[in-house]
Amino acid sequence: MAKKKVIVIGGGFGGVFAAKELERHGRDQFDVELINANNYFVFQPLLPEVAASTIHSADAVTPLRLLLQRIEVRQAEVMGIDFDKRAVTVVQGFRRIPIDLPYDELVIALGMSVDLKRFPGLTEHALTMKNLADAHRLRTHIISCLEAADVTTDKAVKQQLLTFVVAGAGFTGVETVSEVNELIRRALKYYHNIKQDEIRVYLVEYANRILPTFPADLADYATKRMQMRGIDVKTGVGTKAATYSAVELTDGAVIPTRTIVATIGNSPNPLIASLGLDMHWGRIKTDRYMRVPGHDHVWALGDAADIPLVDHPGEDPTHYAPQTAQFAVREGRQLAKNIIAQADGKPLMPFAYTSRGSLASLGMSKAVAEVYGFKLSGTLAWLLWRGFYLSFLPGFATKLRVAVSWMLNAIVPPNIVLIESQQPGSRYIHYRKGDKVLEPGMLIDGFYTVVKGALKLTIDNPKTGEHFEKVFGPGQHFGERVLLKSALRTGLVVALEDSIVLWISQKDFTRLARAFPVLDTYFKDYIESTFGGPDKGFAPGSAEAIEELENVI
Amino acid sequence: MAKKKVIVIGGGFGGVFAAKELERHGRDQFDVELINANNYFVFQPLLPEVAASTIHSADAVTPLRLLLQRIEVRQAEVMGIDFDKRAVTVVQGFRRIPIDLPYDELVIALGMSVDLKRFPGLTEHALTMKNLADAHRLRTHIISCLEAADVTTDKAVKQQLLTFVVAGAGFTGVETVSEVNELIRRALKYYHNIKQDEIRVYLVEYANRILPTFPADLADYATKRMQMRGIDVKTGVGTKAATYSAVELTDGAVIPTRTIVATIGNSPNPLIASLGLDMHWGRIKTDRYMRVPGHDHVWALGDAADIPLVDHPGEDPTHYAPQTAQFAVREGRQLAKNIIAQADGKPLMPFAYTSRGSLASLGMSKAVAEVYGFKLSGTLAWLLWRGFYLSFLPGFATKLRVAVSWMLNAIVPPNIVLIESQQPGSRYIHYRKGDKVLEPGMLIDGFYTVVKGALKLTIDNPKTGEHFEKVFGPGQHFGERVLLKSALRTGLVVALEDSIVLWISQKDFTRLARAFPVLDTYFKDYIESTFGGPDKGFAPGSAEAIEELENVI
Repeated sequence: MAKKKVIVIGGGFGGVFAAKELERHGRDQFDVELINANNYFVFQPLLPEVAASTIHSADAVTPLRLLLQRIEVRQAEVMGIDFDKRAVTVVQGFRRIPIDLPYDELVIALGMSVDLKRFPGLTEHALTMKNLADAHRLRTHIISCLEAADVTTDKAVKQQLLTFVVAGAGFTGVETVSEVNELIRRALKYYHNIKQDEIRVYLVEYANRILPTFPADLADYATKRMQMRGIDVKTGVGTKAATYSAVELTDGAVIPTRTIVATIGNSPNPLIASLGLDMHWGRIKTDRYMRVPGHDHVWALGDAADIPLVDHPGEDPTHYAPQTAQFAVREGRQLAKNIIAQADGKPLMPFAYTSRGSLASLGMSKAVAEVYGFKLSGTLAWLLWRGFYLSFLPGFATKLRVAVSWMLNAIVPPNIVLIESQQPGSRYIHYRKGDKVLEPGMLIDGFYTVVKGALKLTIDNPKTGEHFEKVFGPGQHFGERVLLKSALRTGLVVALEDSIVLWISQKDFTRLARAFPVLDTYFKDYIESTFGGPDKGFAPGSAEAIEELENVI
Repeated sequence: MAKKKVIVIGGGFGGVFAAKELERHGRDQFDVELINANNYFVFQPLLPEVAASTIHSADAVTPLRLLLQRIEVRQAEVMGIDFDKRAVTVVQGFRRIPIDLPYDELVIALGMSVDLKRFPGLTEHALTMKNLADAHRLRTHIISCLEAADVTTDKAVKQQLLTFVVAGAGFTGVETVSEVNELIRRALKYYHNIKQDEIRVYLVEYANRILPTFPADLADYATKRMQMRGIDVKTGVGTKAATYSAVELTDGAVIPTRTIVATIGNSPNPLIASLGLDMHWGRIKTDRYMRVPGHDHVWALGDAADIPLVDHPGEDPTHYAPQTAQFAVREGRQLAKNIIAQADGKPLMPFAYTSRGSLASLGMSKAVAEVYGFKLSGTLAWLLWRGFYLSFLPGFATKLRVAVSWMLNAIVPPNIVLIESQQPGSRYIHYRKGDKVLEPGMLIDGFYTVVKGALKLTIDNPKTGEHFEKVFGPGQHFGERVLLKSALRTGLVVALEDSIVLWISQKDFTRLARAFPVLDTYFKDYIESTFGGPDKGFAPGSAEAIEELENVI
């Protein structure tokens, strides 16, 4: 008899443990395939340690092919699901040709996404902590800030560079702020021009307390520990908006900073939102067996699913499985058993599990824990935290790599190596009224188009006494003159009101402007008619000079 | 008495060891500052191991601030040097305002750059092995190829993905091809759909033998080892040109591949080339004391300098210090001593050193070595290689991290975790006549402007029998219709002759086209007049659908 095909989409705790259980007990009956956008499983609790440089990016994760050696693993993006045809459409590889993969049973384990649109500027300016790339980016960003702060001569800029804000004080927020704080404090010995008291680290939480899933006394302990380590814990105040150089809080306070880490804004995965399934609190409704009602052979679990723990759960959150790794693992195993039971014509089992407890690390060998109702804090809790996570990490190679990283970290100084990352081709930048967008003497690095608001350019030539000014509104642009003409530096550009600008990198913009005749013609005319003739010739800083720079050292 | 300022530019072997020696013996007399584009020192010989996933990126390098704790380290780009004013102009930080740093003594240790312009398409399509980002990129690229090859259904594409070409068989070329070959062969056990005999690995060298600095019998041994491990070693044939899917050799052979690693094309650093100094064989001429003639208080060393070992060296290459790490280290120390001697009014010492030997790893616990005239090959040479490099690595933390990585690598499988990297905003793509640029059904991922050559678009609608074709020459473009209009997939685009195209990523292009009115208007008119009216509506694959995709899983 031909085997049935099970497709699992999503390689987090739920998806991996469901696939693992099917690999163990269902291989005779099923061909199992797991589809994930990355080729690895992320052990989420270790991401803050990646951000803090304690563990290497590649060590906090395990290749899915290593975890699931006897089933198929496909690195691909899921584009859509056709429930009637029973097929998943994926895009994969270098050629991006969509293909349909038929299934007999489908397991949806896509987790949750982040949506920061409610907070103006946060999508563009906040770093998130959802995946490995996020953690790696945060580490790189923090070290960049220290490097820049060590050499800057501008006090206001230095303050922005040395201020770090984490929004949201759940697990991820608390662990991230603690780990990041340790990295910064430990790294300072290498930065001769930065003093400990110039560092500001904030944890901002809208609720009245941190760690909502912990007992209040453990949350108090955690708050005190963080305060002792120099972290400013602000509760009862939320994040409202952000620009490239500040974050605004709900109480109106503005904190100048170049680093905002958002651990808030959980929202449904866009693919799931587009499927037209019955949703509850942003998650797929399932029955107690994790089946999706109204769709035969479709199952859901993990953070993406709302799994009732009782028959008539209603609107009581405690009647649904909480969104934790601990639950997702058990859901995965039970779901796999139910798929096998269904094929064998045996009765399915409803999902049931009681939490064994919670753990949160506070850095510096301290943690808080609640296990089987016992409360622990301090070093013992921290040892428990490490031991538990190590035992929980999938795969011997990953366990060994993490254990070795922890040991190394205890005896050698933090690794502050700053690995160059590719810059984005474009980004939206938010400015507050009065912000300086460009300053005289700056080497410009991109082309700016106004999306919203108004900005004013002023050029003063100290030699000739020439004065030029112009106000830019939506659709208007600046920077092209410096990039496309030679021997010019920028003037002063100030935001006249709160504004948003689209920035395109110098490299990408000049390539396009040269290759694409419409732009070439447009800019030639525009620059002549606006600035009156070619080269003003103040100083170096031209496109040519910058192009040379790119290869230097 | 005020201390004199010594600026060292470049943080390779020469620069670091000069700075280190000045830190040790010259701190009372000098303020020393080392300027480098990265905040770390790269131990070049370990880069192939980073590419092979044996060592983590951050472990093959050492933070400069850790190596040089008692002098200033500045992460900045050097933009220019004013020898008359005795000042170095640097650009640093997030704001990119150029500043001048005055010096009393200047040490130029900028190394060499890579220039592949002689080989059409190589600049755009080859990976290099100069710095840490290069090594990391090569690792990521190889694993991407394996992931894509595992799922592709197109045999020609699979062959391209599983063919790996390294150009140049010096140290770096031989070590890179050996290490990369081991990574691929070891990783295959995870890729169920790839067989060992589908892998092609080439080493291509224009000279008639590999490893020119080694005795011929050791080079023969190395060639045989590599062949035994499945590497095709081609000598007497050079690399001529490359496209996105092939490399052309000087004998006319065309190898279909998506991976070309160029370890060829050494050229002067562009900053050095622009200084107007006396150059010899692409390097700065110095006297035997490493002073730059005609420029008081300017010194040069390392790969960037041509340091004579005798009084009248002429054109005999053996009369100049070779460009190796071994020599750079001794040059650095001697140069520092000469700076101190000059300040003390004591006589300077000419640079003199004799090589102790050479080592090259061949992967799989084999190496070749020539030490004090003795020749060694095999496992003993490999142990010597590891021991030597370990002893040579600067800093205890780095030594420990590398030793631990080597031990881990011996007991756990290779780490095939594929860490997402930011895609570039634009790139130039070379095509050979007949290459398919886009195929029907593909999800387009960018906007294409023709820079050189001619390409033909054909659209056939199977439902309506409609047929559309158009030839694009320089300045013309395609892709905009799919990106800016909805519900369309691409047609077939084929290169009618050898062509170059500028590709702008979908994300950056659509942002610019929406924000910038000239483009918005132009494309509206262009699409209507060219394709006759809006939406043709074949299938999904529109800009909106793709935008959604970005957030999936």
